[in-house]
Amino acid sequence: MLNSDALDLLFHNGRTFSAWQDRDVDINLLKQAWDLAVLGPTSANCEPMRVTFIESAEAKARLKPYLAEGNVDKTMAAPVTAIVAQDLEFYEKLPDLYPHTDARSWFAGKEDAIKTTAFRNSSLQAGYFILALRAQGLDCGPMSGFDNAKLDADFFAGTPVKSNFLINIGYGDRAKLHARSPRLAFDQGAEIL
Amino acid sequence: MLNSDALDLLFHNGRTFSAWQDRDVDINLLKQAWDLAVLGPTSANCEPMRVTFIESAEAKARLKPYLAEGNVDKTMAAPVTAIVAQDLEFYEKLPDLYPHTDARSWFAGKEDAIKTTAFRNSSLQAGYFILALRAQGLDCGPMSGFDNAKLDADFFAGTPVKSNFLINIGYGDRAKLHARSPRLAFDQGAEIL
Repeated sequence: MLNSDALDLLFHNGRTFSAWQDRDVDINLLKQAWDLAVLGPTSANCEPMRVTFIESAEAKARLKPYLAEGNVDKTMAAPVTAIVAQDLEFYEKLPDLYPHTDARSWFAGKEDAIKTTAFRNSSLQAGYFILALRAQGLDCGPMSGFDNAKLDADFFAGTPVKSNFLINIGYGDRAKLHARSPRLAFDQGAEIL
Repeated sequence: MLNSDALDLLFHNGRTFSAWQDRDVDINLLKQAWDLAVLGPTSANCEPMRVTFIESAEAKARLKPYLAEGNVDKTMAAPVTAIVAQDLEFYEKLPDLYPHTDARSWFAGKEDAIKTTAFRNSSLQAGYFILALRAQGLDCGPMSGFDNAKLDADFFAGTPVKSNFLINIGYGDRAKLHARSPRLAFDQGAEIL
């Protein structure tokens, strides 16, 4: 069982931040979070999540016009923004990632299976990734308010990669947090049969 | 930062299990995992994940015919199977879950936004949930090989709930594990701009 300090770090004190301390993010922490997140289970170990970390002033300026208005200031202020994306040709890596059977053939040419598997599993991996970032002591501000098509045409032109959502990353300013919104109780969202 | 024991529990030693120890799962652990998982961030705090825990012999018999052949034995042997699902009317709860603005109007009547948001965020929550189950000392065996439409027609008839994927839950038999499959290195799946 995880102890209470660890539960606090990952869950109880984990919040969605919009304001950031003036403190840089060590790139090694992002790499360590990646190495943890990819350990999480995916369907046939397909690992469709791809991440583009926006850190330089040039890259931030490129990202800015695609953000929803309410997401501009907090994103420009964040030390790093991760574009969490999905590789729609993830199945080309299955001969390496799932070598004991011909898993590539489960997907190649099957558009519905590709789209569903990439979206489900890149989102699932993003869940692992957010908690892995928190495990490195980092704070997150995930958001889906941006123009996916325009961002993809700029950052992923000519590739099979499509954006899923964004995560601002840094050390959050806890003084600027609002009270946490309510959560669904077990009996509101779950049942035991 | 999370210490190495916690990283081992959640990530390094976390594996997808197909064989289970003969040991019951305390329902309170499932409830505690739910309460942790719902703390994770979702878009406008929409929390679309719903979970039906299959535990009784009757419910297991109901589930069995919808499973892909390769998933039958391990699922019937698991102490509990979670049907991770998504509520396509999640927006009806937004006046309670995100009360400071009219977030319901962002979704009501907008089928594409509903489907995308429910699928993305229920999958994201499933990522938190798998790690929250591991945080309770439980092991998981997630899988998407089943007939979603037939399962939904049985378990969720007349509701806006649709299945996403399944997670077998229990105490795994580590002696029956194969070697872990390879993972994508940072440079294979990520970039820094």
